[in-house]
Amino acid sequence: MYTPSVKKLIQEISKLPGIGEKTAERLAFHMLLNREDGKSIAQAITEMVEKTRHCEICHNFAEATPCSICSNSKRDQSLLCVVEEPKDLLALERSESYNGLYHVLMGRFAPLEKKGPESLTISGLVSRIESGQFREVILATNPTLEGDGTALYLSRMLAKHSLKVTRIGRGVSWGLNLSYANKASLSDALSCRQSMEED
Amino acid sequence: MYTPSVKKLIQEISKLPGIGEKTAERLAFHMLLNREDGKSIAQAITEMVEKTRHCEICHNFAEATPCSICSNSKRDQSLLCVVEEPKDLLALERSESYNGLYHVLMGRFAPLEKKGPESLTISGLVSRIESGQFREVILATNPTLEGDGTALYLSRMLAKHSLKVTRIGRGVSWGLNLSYANKASLSDALSCRQSMEED
Repeated sequence: MYTPSVKKLIQEISKLPGIGEKTAERLAFHMLLNREDGKSIAQAITEMVEKTRHCEICHNFAEATPCSICSNSKRDQSLLCVVEEPKDLLALERSESYNGLYHVLMGRFAPLEKKGPESLTISGLVSRIESGQFREVILATNPTLEGDGTALYLSRMLAKHSLKVTRIGRGVSWGLNLSYANKASLSDALSCRQSMEED
Repeated sequence: MYTPSVKKLIQEISKLPGIGEKTAERLAFHMLLNREDGKSIAQAITEMVEKTRHCEICHNFAEATPCSICSNSKRDQSLLCVVEEPKDLLALERSESYNGLYHVLMGRFAPLEKKGPESLTISGLVSRIESGQFREVILATNPTLEGDGTALYLSRMLAKHSLKVTRIGRGVSWGLNLSYANKASLSDALSCRQSMEED
């Protein structure tokens, strides 16, 4: 019922995460009714795909390498935060509570998908650690089964180096009512409880 | 925090209906991690925008004009269904309950947006009606204030021609529990009640 080129676009858009056929149809029709929007998007995708590469040091998305974070001398050069994906790095940057450097693994161990250490940027991480630049590595993989597994592997791997290895704090999320927290979060919150004594 | 080209794409995608910045970020990142998907989408958009035009007769989206519906001699050539948008036509086609021809208005009267008859494909509709080809025109504009207004205008305009002008049936939607139906639907359902006598 669609024209061939509309059908093709709907198929392509449906491949995007979280986009079903109904939404794809809506987006395609919007771009037909607003052709300039469509052209701008096509151009922006092409440009982004061509220009954006990975920083050779931290593996975050960047147009220049080293990226703006790696080459920023105002950041704490002795602190390294390891995250799974570029979007995790972005979330931490948005929180404005971290001023060190990053290393993006570009994934996590996922035994069920047969994703092991070799599929991640771990060799790059090792080189960076071996440079002796860092006093602390913060493992900020996600608080999931796979993220925890990845953190455990990394902490064991880093144990032979003389640096502090930490894992991000765990517990209940700020603003959440306890009655809505899941069991694992509450268990984390209890075992990670901290003294209220003021310094 | 984004690279310039990622930022640009996120801005462009956010212009699409129903896509917020968070979703736009997710889609852009997906296309960075799956560059082939990104390239295919950009190409599919460009191709669609170039190839898809409006049928000169019914104004539906089409790559050929007349479109496959207008040029299908197996369809009832004496029945014309008037809809607001191409997506309404698609919905009717999907229902597999109509076999006549269509006319797409490409909008509706929207006094608040200052959209009157001149912004629609009404002159084309008039020419088609004047050809004397049709015995019935079904006004299938949406069951909304603006759709009803548009239907009223069209029915008055068509009154001078010797053809039957009908409006799509109104009432409660199939499968809906009455307790969830809104007041206007229930009012429609009562005033449009039909005899249960079997022929």
